[in-house]
Amino acid sequence: MEHLEDHERREVWNKVKDALDHDHIDQFRAEFLELHPYDQAEIFVGLDTEVRMQIYTYLSPEEIADVMEHIDYDEIEPFFTEMDPRFAAQVFAEMSTDDAVDIFNELEKDKVASFLTIMDDEAAQEIKDLLHYEEKTAGSIMTTEFVVVKATMTIRQAMVHLRTEAPDAETIYYTYVIDEDKRLVGVISLRDLIVSEEDWLIADVMSERVVSVSVGDDQEEVARMVRDYDFLALPVVDFQEHLLGIITVDDIMDVMEEEASDDYSKLAGIADVDSPDENAFASAKKRLPWLVILLFLGSLTASLIGRFEETLSVYPILAVFIPLIAGMAGNTGTQALAVAVRGIATGEIDKQGKAKMMFREAGTGVITGVSCGVIITLIVYFWQGNFFLGVLVGLSILMTLIVATLAGSLVPLIMHRFDIDPAVASGPFITTINDIISILIYFGMATAFMNLLI
Amino acid sequence: MEHLEDHERREVWNKVKDALDHDHIDQFRAEFLELHPYDQAEIFVGLDTEVRMQIYTYLSPEEIADVMEHIDYDEIEPFFTEMDPRFAAQVFAEMSTDDAVDIFNELEKDKVASFLTIMDDEAAQEIKDLLHYEEKTAGSIMTTEFVVVKATMTIRQAMVHLRTEAPDAETIYYTYVIDEDKRLVGVISLRDLIVSEEDWLIADVMSERVVSVSVGDDQEEVARMVRDYDFLALPVVDFQEHLLGIITVDDIMDVMEEEASDDYSKLAGIADVDSPDENAFASAKKRLPWLVILLFLGSLTASLIGRFEETLSVYPILAVFIPLIAGMAGNTGTQALAVAVRGIATGEIDKQGKAKMMFREAGTGVITGVSCGVIITLIVYFWQGNFFLGVLVGLSILMTLIVATLAGSLVPLIMHRFDIDPAVASGPFITTINDIISILIYFGMATAFMNLLI
Repeated sequence: MEHLEDHERREVWNKVKDALDHDHIDQFRAEFLELHPYDQAEIFVGLDTEVRMQIYTYLSPEEIADVMEHIDYDEIEPFFTEMDPRFAAQVFAEMSTDDAVDIFNELEKDKVASFLTIMDDEAAQEIKDLLHYEEKTAGSIMTTEFVVVKATMTIRQAMVHLRTEAPDAETIYYTYVIDEDKRLVGVISLRDLIVSEEDWLIADVMSERVVSVSVGDDQEEVARMVRDYDFLALPVVDFQEHLLGIITVDDIMDVMEEEASDDYSKLAGIADVDSPDENAFASAKKRLPWLVILLFLGSLTASLIGRFEETLSVYPILAVFIPLIAGMAGNTGTQALAVAVRGIATGEIDKQGKAKMMFREAGTGVITGVSCGVIITLIVYFWQGNFFLGVLVGLSILMTLIVATLAGSLVPLIMHRFDIDPAVASGPFITTINDIISILIYFGMATAFMNLLI
Repeated sequence: MEHLEDHERREVWNKVKDALDHDHIDQFRAEFLELHPYDQAEIFVGLDTEVRMQIYTYLSPEEIADVMEHIDYDEIEPFFTEMDPRFAAQVFAEMSTDDAVDIFNELEKDKVASFLTIMDDEAAQEIKDLLHYEEKTAGSIMTTEFVVVKATMTIRQAMVHLRTEAPDAETIYYTYVIDEDKRLVGVISLRDLIVSEEDWLIADVMSERVVSVSVGDDQEEVARMVRDYDFLALPVVDFQEHLLGIITVDDIMDVMEEEASDDYSKLAGIADVDSPDENAFASAKKRLPWLVILLFLGSLTASLIGRFEETLSVYPILAVFIPLIAGMAGNTGTQALAVAVRGIATGEIDKQGKAKMMFREAGTGVITGVSCGVIITLIVYFWQGNFFLGVLVGLSILMTLIVATLAGSLVPLIMHRFDIDPAVASGPFITTINDIISILIYFGMATAFMNLLI
C-alpha cells in the first residue's frame, strides 16, 4: 500500500515518459493530470532537469502549483530556480497563500523580493501580509482563500456565491458569516446549507457561537483545538474579531507531525530527526552539537569523581556501581521529563496544577526509590557479602531516584514558567545533570561513612 | 485560549446549574445543547453522580451519545455503568460505530455481551462486525456510517439521497460510488457535486481513480496516506474491493497523536506517558517495570566492572571516566535509535535501503567518534598530564561511538525485519546495552595496555 503501488507508478510513468519522448502533449496531460497531485509530485521530483523543463511548457502555472503544494518545503527551492522567473511568479500566485508563504520562508531574501516584484499586485500583497506573522503562530499557517457570506443572504444566494468561489477556496465545507465591519459573527457548514430550505436566511441557520483562534496563538494550541472539536477548519481573527484567514485540517496534520517530531528529536538529543540524511557528514552534523556538550559535561563529572580518588583507591569496589547509579538516575530523570513535557504540551498540567504534580512526582520518586533501593541492597549483599556496601548502594539509589525524578519534572516546569519551550530540556541534558547529582550523592555518602565500609 | 475560556465555561455552567437546581428542563436544554459537544463533555465529566443521573433524564440517547463521543475512552466506563442499561444500549446505538467499538474494547467481556443483547439487532450487528478487526488496523478505526450512490444516478438524485442520509453519516463531504456487487468504483466530493449541473450523471463527474486502504492495513500507514493526500476521509475495502467502511480525518488525528505519544513513551522508557496520573502509585507503576529491568542490567554491568577490580586497584583514576564513556555510548545510541525508529515509521528507510543506511550510520559513528575522541584526548592530557591515559580514553570514545551508533540503528532494523514494532527497543534498553559494550571496550583496552599507563 505505497499510496500508488510502486508498479502502478512505474506503469503510469512509462506512459507519461512515452508521451514526453514523442512530444505528445495531449497524451501527457491526459495521463499526468489524472493522478492525484501527491503522486504527480512523487514522479516529478524524480525527473531530470531537461524533462522538468519540458513539463513546465506542457502544464499551466495553476497545474504546476498543484504539484508544488505536495513537495516538501526543504526540497523545493531548485524547482523554482530552474523555472522562468515570470512563470515561477505565476505559479506562486496560483498556490494556496499559506503554501506559497511557507516556501518564501525557505528562499533567500533577494529572491523573495524579486518574485514579489514580478507577481501581480493582489497576490503579492496577500503573501506579504502573511510573511509578517511569526513562525509557529496561527497567522503563519493560515490561508486567506476562504469563503464568506452575509447573515442577510438567503441559502439560495449563499449557494450561488459558494459555487462561484469554490475553485479558489481552500475549503468550502465551512462558510464564515461576517458583518459590515468584516467581523466574524457566525459559521455555517455545507452540510447545514444543503439540508436547509433555499429561501431561509443565513442568520436563521448559522451557528453564532463560532470558535476562533487569535492570529498570534501558538500553532500547537490551534492543533489541539481542531483535534478536540473535530473541526475541518478554524477561523483566525485579530483582537477586534476581524476575520483574517482560516486554518484547514490538512495543515493541522502537518503541524501535529512537526511538533511530535520536534519533541521526539529533543528527547533523543538530536537536531532534527525527520529530514532524511543524505550522507554521514550531514548526519554527524546534527548529532555532534549535543555530543560535544555532553563531552564537556562528562568531563565535569569525571573531575568530580577525581575528587574522591582517595576514597576510590581505598575501596576500588565503589567504582563498580558507578554506571548502575548514574544509569538509574539518567533513566528515571528522562521518564519524569517525558511526563512533564507531554503534560505541558497537552495542557494536562495546567489543569491539575503544578504543585500537585510536583507532590505526585516526589511520591513517585519515593516509591520507585524504596523499591529499587531494597532490591539492589539485597543483590549487593548476596553478591558481595558486604551488608554495609549493599545499604550504601541502596540508600544512594533511593536518594538518587527521588532527586532525579524531581529534577526531571522541575526543569521543564521552570522553563515553561519562563515561556521557554520545555522540550529544549532534552533527554541528554537531564541525563547528564542527574549523572552528576547521583555521583555526588554516592561518593559523598561513601566518603562520609568510609570507616563503616570494610 | 482554553477552547471555551475558563470564565465562559463557568458562566455557562452557572446557568446550567441553575436550571438543574430548579428542574427547568427547557432552560437546561437550551443552554447545554447550544455548546459544542466537546465543551458539553468537559462540563459533564466534572459533575457529581446525582447531577449526571438528572441529565440522563433530560437528554435523549442521541444527545448523550454526542457527549460520550468526546470523552476519553479510558475515563468513560463509569458513566455507562451508572446509566440504566437499556438507556446505555440506546446511547451506544446512537454513537458512531467506530466510537462505540472503541469503548466496547475498554469494557469487560460480560458487560459487552449484555449491552449487545439489549441493543436493537442492526446496531448490535454493526458493532459486532467491527469488534472482529485487530487493534491498530484500518478495520478497527473505520466507521460504517458512510454515504454511497450508484454511478447511474443523476446529480439531482444523489443530492436528494445525500440530504436524507446527512443526519446519520460520519461525513457527507465525500460520497462513494459502488456497483451492483457493492464494489467501490468511484468517489465524488460534495464540492464537485454542488458545482455540477443537476441532470449530469454521477458516472461523468466521479473520479474513478479512488485511493482506498485494505481493512487489515496498519493505522499508521493509513494516517500517513491521509496526510500525504490531504484527504478528509478514506474508504476501506476488502480484498475484493467491497466497500466496508470509511476513516475520517478526525480519527486520523487521534491515530497520529496516539502513535506519536507511543514512540515518545518508548524512547523515555515509560509505559504510557499520556494518560494523566491520578497519584504517585499509578505513576510509579508505569515507571517501575523499566527501572527494575535496568537495575538488573545495571548489576550485570557492575559485575563486568568487578572483573577488572585488579586493574582498578592499580589505577583508580580509570574509574573517573566511567560515567563519561558510558554516558556518551548511551546518548549516541539513543540518537541513532531515534533516527532509525522515525525512518521506519515514515517509510524513509524502505525508500533509501537498509544497507545504505547502515553504511551511513557507520560513517556517522566514525566522524563523531574521531571528533569526540580527539577533544577528550586533549582534555585528559592537559588536565591529568598523562598522554597515554588521554589516548586510552580517546580511543575508547572513538570505538564506543562507532559500536554504539551501529547498535542503536541495527536493533530497530532487526526488529522491523521480524515484524516487531521497532519502538519497543526503547531508549533505556539501548542505553544500557551500550553502557555494557562501552565498559568492556574501555577496561579491555586498559587491561591490555596496562603497563603503558603509568
